[in-house]
Amino acid sequence: MKKSYLIAQSGGPTTAINASLIGVVNALLNLTDTDKIYGSQHGIQGVLKENFITLSTYSPEELDRIKFSPAMYLGSCRYRLNEDNADEYTKIFDIFKRYNIDTFFYIGGNDSMDTVMKLNRYAANNNIDIRIIGIPKTIDNDLLVTDHTPGFGSAVKYVASTIREIAYDTHIYDLQNVLIVEIMGRDSGWLTAATALARNEYITAPDLIYLPEIPFSITDFLEDIKSKLLQQKQVVVAVSEGIKDNHGHYIAAGVSDSDQFGHSQLSGAGKVLEYVVKEHLHVKVRSVELNVLQRCSSHMSSLADLTEAHDLGAYAVKLARENQSGKMPILVRESDGSFSISATDVENVANKAKYVPLSWINDMGNNITNEMIEYLKPLPCGEIPLHYNNGILEYVPFV
Amino acid sequence: MKKSYLIAQSGGPTTAINASLIGVVNALLNLTDTDKIYGSQHGIQGVLKENFITLSTYSPEELDRIKFSPAMYLGSCRYRLNEDNADEYTKIFDIFKRYNIDTFFYIGGNDSMDTVMKLNRYAANNNIDIRIIGIPKTIDNDLLVTDHTPGFGSAVKYVASTIREIAYDTHIYDLQNVLIVEIMGRDSGWLTAATALARNEYITAPDLIYLPEIPFSITDFLEDIKSKLLQQKQVVVAVSEGIKDNHGHYIAAGVSDSDQFGHSQLSGAGKVLEYVVKEHLHVKVRSVELNVLQRCSSHMSSLADLTEAHDLGAYAVKLARENQSGKMPILVRESDGSFSISATDVENVANKAKYVPLSWINDMGNNITNEMIEYLKPLPCGEIPLHYNNGILEYVPFV
Repeated sequence: MKKSYLIAQSGGPTTAINASLIGVVNALLNLTDTDKIYGSQHGIQGVLKENFITLSTYSPEELDRIKFSPAMYLGSCRYRLNEDNADEYTKIFDIFKRYNIDTFFYIGGNDSMDTVMKLNRYAANNNIDIRIIGIPKTIDNDLLVTDHTPGFGSAVKYVASTIREIAYDTHIYDLQNVLIVEIMGRDSGWLTAATALARNEYITAPDLIYLPEIPFSITDFLEDIKSKLLQQKQVVVAVSEGIKDNHGHYIAAGVSDSDQFGHSQLSGAGKVLEYVVKEHLHVKVRSVELNVLQRCSSHMSSLADLTEAHDLGAYAVKLARENQSGKMPILVRESDGSFSISATDVENVANKAKYVPLSWINDMGNNITNEMIEYLKPLPCGEIPLHYNNGILEYVPFV
Repeated sequence: MKKSYLIAQSGGPTTAINASLIGVVNALLNLTDTDKIYGSQHGIQGVLKENFITLSTYSPEELDRIKFSPAMYLGSCRYRLNEDNADEYTKIFDIFKRYNIDTFFYIGGNDSMDTVMKLNRYAANNNIDIRIIGIPKTIDNDLLVTDHTPGFGSAVKYVASTIREIAYDTHIYDLQNVLIVEIMGRDSGWLTAATALARNEYITAPDLIYLPEIPFSITDFLEDIKSKLLQQKQVVVAVSEGIKDNHGHYIAAGVSDSDQFGHSQLSGAGKVLEYVVKEHLHVKVRSVELNVLQRCSSHMSSLADLTEAHDLGAYAVKLARENQSGKMPILVRESDGSFSISATDVENVANKAKYVPLSWINDMGNNITNEMIEYLKPLPCGEIPLHYNNGILEYVPFV
């Protein structure tokens, strides 16, 4: 009997999440007993609304365009299943049954893996013959077990390359100046740390790196800047949006009262530190918030990242064919530096977070170690084909 | 007798200003009587300090790498010559004489053309046998006489392509949301207007465009957003950093008192409008400031732009060989849509600004006309070769 499948995407965008989607679709299309491949629009909410499109009718060319396009082709949601709401589960599994769904694939981060875990438990408890498979993605790289997450390598490529370009911009004036770049990652500093890959023989930027794993001190920060300005004219700082003081308060919410540092809703960490530098050091200072560009700049995707994302999607299909459920494919770093794919129970990943090891942060708390750089190096490698139309980037049309 | 030349760059960076530099150098290297080609580091200030490098010894490969690199290879300054300071002029022309400078080429915007104008006047008044030639650049496109400025086309490519990527990011959630993108251009709205090139058959972003040429009304802005939200879930707004209310006050400095809208130093126009939308419309809203990325993202340079910038540099050499001085090469749009190069007196350009014609802005003051789109279309076309090393963009080493 032919089998049908359902795929959905959830959480925040990465430039690799569509590659995982296409990895699943391509692997399913290679099977002889695949009937329909459905995509749910807007994640598990789309399942509840039966908001489905049929991906099995797409041409290889269309699938390839989706693979290299930004954000999430199927749309997203931020919706947590409530374990007390049995009706919701009944409804979802009724819909799965009606569409003859053999496996439900959910691509997302640790919140989305919570959905995978709950659906899997419900299916097991109720002896429902279905497989629920999670596929990881997040630019934050904060999932446990997997060596790194799809989406992270592309974000690394973007932030490091962008800081190189910013270093040229900062270099032009023959005067002291400080440039602060604010990077995404509210609780974990992986992406901020990865800005270190911008450095080469002549670029020292970022000269200072601050991660949320280490309590942030304004006093130490100013001393760090002053010390750098004794050695060089331009100082580039990479700072995580999520840095907190030693009481656990976000710097972004204002380091002091709001009268002095502006309304908290108006100030990210970078902007607050810009103001602090201006007030205390009286040098030219600017802050740049890379914002959503870190997660949607598909034109700077890492080929290594998109290839892995695609392969993890294919591996998820393999798991389903082995009748496994409640699993998530992971990347394993081998001793020779290559990567292989394996799987873990989604229970090991859901609702948990992986932080930058403190041993990979220097003693001053303002830089990362070479060990961390070695970890990061392979992730941004390789470039993808780009399509420009009349000089403007072009991707796949919206659904 | 062999002739030597001096080139300098000034003002803010563009990704095309190095192409003009190399256009000058290549044209000079093609002449049989060229002796030394000097580059002054940090503009006219570098001249005063005799802070010179010798570009005539560079290999064609090195020159080609400089052509495609961000910011200003020679560094910049923001320095206005003071006409009352005769000593400064004497010093500059003494240095020109000592280095046997036949022509001084100054690449910059309308402020830099002021320097060209003053040096040319001084040379004429004192019968000094030297040519002073300006070469235009600015991402702001606000120079008079020339159809458009080198650097603008690349910035157009960057902002329009980036807004397309942001449109995908904004599209993923099935809920109302507003995204505001703040674009550079304090007095003229050319670059903000150019975000319209992001639109295609399925992307409506930017749905609203606000330029500094039209007084900005918060009330009208909120009505515009509300009206769009009746038709569509996602609204993307492009707004110039320089929008002002009908009293001429910058929106960026706070639309009301600083207690309500945050310290003015902490809020760009986009951030202020984000807060206004949040307070009045209670929908999800985010602002993105493209910041220096608009002027330093060489990886998204327009080949048309860099080619023109290079050709204008070469044309500047032609002007010098014709013994012309106080001139600036310009781009002329022909009736068939192609561009030719001509020249104008720098007096027509220095200290003046070109604004978006009001006839190219719609009656509502929240969009641009098709005539403007036709004007913009050719400018971002074509892509340049990129060089990645271990997955990170790489450019020419600093001097």
